Amino acid sequence: MDPIRIAVVGMGKIARDQHLPAISGNPNFNLAATVSPNHGGEPGIPHFKTLDELLESSTGVDAVSLCTPPQVRYELAVSALRAGMHVFLEKPPGATLSEVVALTARADKVGTSLFASWHSRFAAGVAPARAWLSERVIKDVKIIWREDVREWHPGQDWIWEPGGLGVFDPGINALSILTHIMPSPVFLNTATLSLPANRAAPIAADIQFRDTAGTPIHMDLDWRQVGPQSWDIIVETDAGQLKLSNGGAVLSLPSGVERNEDMEYPGLYARFATLIRGGRSDVDLDPLRLVADAFLRGKRQSVEEFHD
Amino acid sequence: MDPIRIAVVGMGKIARDQHLPAISGNPNFNLAATVSPNHGGEPGIPHFKTLDELLESSTGVDAVSLCTPPQVRYELAVSALRAGMHVFLEKPPGATLSEVVALTARADKVGTSLFASWHSRFAAGVAPARAWLSERVIKDVKIIWREDVREWHPGQDWIWEPGGLGVFDPGINALSILTHIMPSPVFLNTATLSLPANRAAPIAADIQFRDTAGTPIHMDLDWRQVGPQSWDIIVETDAGQLKLSNGGAVLSLPSGVERNEDMEYPGLYARFATLIRGGRSDVDLDPLRLVADAFLRGKRQSVEEFHD
Repeated sequence: MDPIRIAVVGMGKIARDQHLPAISGNPNFNLAATVSPNHGGEPGIPHFKTLDELLESSTGVDAVSLCTPPQVRYELAVSALRAGMHVFLEKPPGATLSEVVALTARADKVGTSLFASWHSRFAAGVAPARAWLSERVIKDVKIIWREDVREWHPGQDWIWEPGGLGVFDPGINALSILTHIMPSPVFLNTATLSLPANRAAPIAADIQFRDTAGTPIHMDLDWRQVGPQSWDIIVETDAGQLKLSNGGAVLSLPSGVERNEDMEYPGLYARFATLIRGGRSDVDLDPLRLVADAFLRGKRQSVEEFHD
Repeated sequence: MDPIRIAVVGMGKIARDQHLPAISGNPNFNLAATVSPNHGGEPGIPHFKTLDELLESSTGVDAVSLCTPPQVRYELAVSALRAGMHVFLEKPPGATLSEVVALTARADKVGTSLFASWHSRFAAGVAPARAWLSERVIKDVKIIWREDVREWHPGQDWIWEPGGLGVFDPGINALSILTHIMPSPVFLNTATLSLPANRAAPIAADIQFRDTAGTPIHMDLDWRQVGPQSWDIIVETDAGQLKLSNGGAVLSLPSGVERNEDMEYPGLYARFATLIRGGRSDVDLDPLRLVADAFLRGKRQSVEEFHD
């Protein structure tokens, strides 16, 4: 089979750190072009300032990965779908739920593949955690997601703007794991969002979820953590404790600890190739819906100003 | 066919003004009980303080209408579905999207009917407006929804709490009409929410939507209107202007004005009976999803305190 000719749109940190290596490591894909108004391209690969310039060129492209901030992703996705391309959406898949629903309808109509990616679901410990939990009675879940925003998102102003998710930008990774490993649907009970007095998005959140089996699920989400960082999900069951740490990479079970190689983005691109070859889409809105619910239902409190 | 024995839960203003008359006017239903911790019942009809008390009694009930504030609706719906009852949800169907998704899954499993009602869709002008627009090219839509909260929601503190929708409580009626009459999916572009300094929910909102055909849709939502009130949707098309006024009751077309009798709640109960008799559910989340998107993506501004 011919490789899928793919273009990467938005050449920021995540594109260079994750997408380019995953694409070059997967024989299903050939990097055909890069697009970015502000960043340069790769040696020997056609580079364009805008997606429109790429579409007007003679460069053959079958698929695009959209790695831009979510606020501009819808327009780019529509242009790509109109041109008959398959579309890989970085997380979150859009700035609103309704635009992603609209995109999904459009992709179905055009018959191309739309993939709303959730990279943390491909962390090494997540699939075995899901399998282990499917046979257990779950009593309680705690999510502790505490990191230093200055270290992980230096100068990324868009995450603080309306449509950026603030601390839910990392927090949605935890929710993508949670909704994947829990056997019953999860919904939001109460939320308190802490917003810096000078910012439009939360820097911390305290959320109580539940699943339809009645399991309490608590989430402690904080971007003000200095010192040791935590990306942990701890699940108490009738057969003892399961712990996913390092964002899903390390799985601790009563029987011992499993550490495996990080395969998040390689896993995503393997999945994208499968979707394209099979003529299917994969758009799961559960994580973004829970975030929207937190904004809809959450109580807001004002906290100390944040300066980068 | 035997009438459906129905209980009304939450005997506030909307239950007395709309639900009881619609139920007594529909031969498919018999009012079997009422439930309310704070309000009294109807002469000759069994009355209970809580839904649990009704369920523990020997009163035969096939269906419930939940007319309580949305913040407590989920628990009541779960109890009713567990007891094998059909459930009618007043709008909005819940305090979060995820809880309604969870309810829908549960109703599907139990095999009972779940109906997320949007009463404005049954306003007299809405069905003919939808039919007329399906054959037109739509150029522009303006929603003007301006009312006096003191007149329409006197002392209803729950609408200002987190999980209450503020001005989106009436605004979601406009959105339920919009998403019903527009031929293409609608999504949110930008929103500005105005919150009184002493309240958790917006008193006004200015929103720009679009549909997938590119039509601009502007919404002006305000609870501070004194004097003449507006519940208007104005649609410019290639065949002239369509105007829905009085919340959908009056339809103005280039050919003239149609005024018909208000049949909103009778229409809802006719629909609910059809769903129950046919073993089906009807849960359309589009209006609530657009509201969640406004909370997710919207810019917030603080405005003058509101005192009832």
